[in-house]
Amino acid sequence: MEKKSIWDLDRDSVEVFRSKKKLPLTVVLDNIRSLNNIGSIFRTSDAFMVRRIMLCGITATPPSAEIHKTALGAEESVSWEYYPETMDAIRVLKAEGTMVCVLEQVKDSVMLHDFHPCPSGSFAIVAGHEVHGVDQAVVDEADVCLEIPQFGTKHSLNVAVSVGLAIWHFFCALKR
Amino acid sequence: MEKKSIWDLDRDSVEVFRSKKKLPLTVVLDNIRSLNNIGSIFRTSDAFMVRRIMLCGITATPPSAEIHKTALGAEESVSWEYYPETMDAIRVLKAEGTMVCVLEQVKDSVMLHDFHPCPSGSFAIVAGHEVHGVDQAVVDEADVCLEIPQFGTKHSLNVAVSVGLAIWHFFCALKR
Repeated sequence: MEKKSIWDLDRDSVEVFRSKKKLPLTVVLDNIRSLNNIGSIFRTSDAFMVRRIMLCGITATPPSAEIHKTALGAEESVSWEYYPETMDAIRVLKAEGTMVCVLEQVKDSVMLHDFHPCPSGSFAIVAGHEVHGVDQAVVDEADVCLEIPQFGTKHSLNVAVSVGLAIWHFFCALKR
Repeated sequence: MEKKSIWDLDRDSVEVFRSKKKLPLTVVLDNIRSLNNIGSIFRTSDAFMVRRIMLCGITATPPSAEIHKTALGAEESVSWEYYPETMDAIRVLKAEGTMVCVLEQVKDSVMLHDFHPCPSGSFAIVAGHEVHGVDQAVVDEADVCLEIPQFGTKHSLNVAVSVGLAIWHFFCALKR
């Protein structure tokens, strides 16, 4: 089986990408520490046509050489906004009628694979700090908390992997 | 909604984890360059009870302080083997009757979400080098090539995210 070349893949330019209809999905990063993770989330968001990323609190913003190292330019294609306070981003989402889905292991969480988003809806995934997770005040504003089931010895996944799984889940539900 | 504590999560010890029945899924890393990616793949493999990881070629092996930084100890719970030549790992998989699923964008690929693994089967996901992908000789030995559909400006996802999506896909198909 022959590997596809860059020409076979025929990706969009940044200009064409920006003008295209996006997945009705916003990614909110609540105080993400690692520039590597932020860049990787930009790259995944580019692949699945995420509407926008809201970078909040200590989450770094482009331009950044470190974000670029893992985003590989996706920080120029994907729309982003910065909010010093995550709660302000949540207020914007609520005001526009977006369902706020916090990625967190809480006592009343819904398992990711059991959550079936309505294809006509608008959604936001909120992911939190690498150690402390999503701030409790933000969790309290969630319309739903989505949990990725885990069966190993560790307590969580890498945040870029968690957000990747969640974006893929919404992509499969909303796009197909 | 109250966040779960470490006690609520009640994760297994390494000893208990090792004795448990695993997902019939092997992850093969064909010349992965980044220790950060290797560690992250160990962490995801721990969460979803991957049977083993085959580290091949230039892919670094534990113990490694850099792998530990992202694996956070999952390199001690998940079984792994090292093969200087990826093709030797593929031969082991073929001999044991495991279906070799290469993660690669090829001309006859099956989209990941269209692939439905038989719950009684045994499977391996093969992921390749961050720039060059899976070696063509390995691609030629694949039982199937699985492609993650992508709609952005970039040509690929981060390899730890790609492997995460593939493990999650197999987990949902095989475990539920």
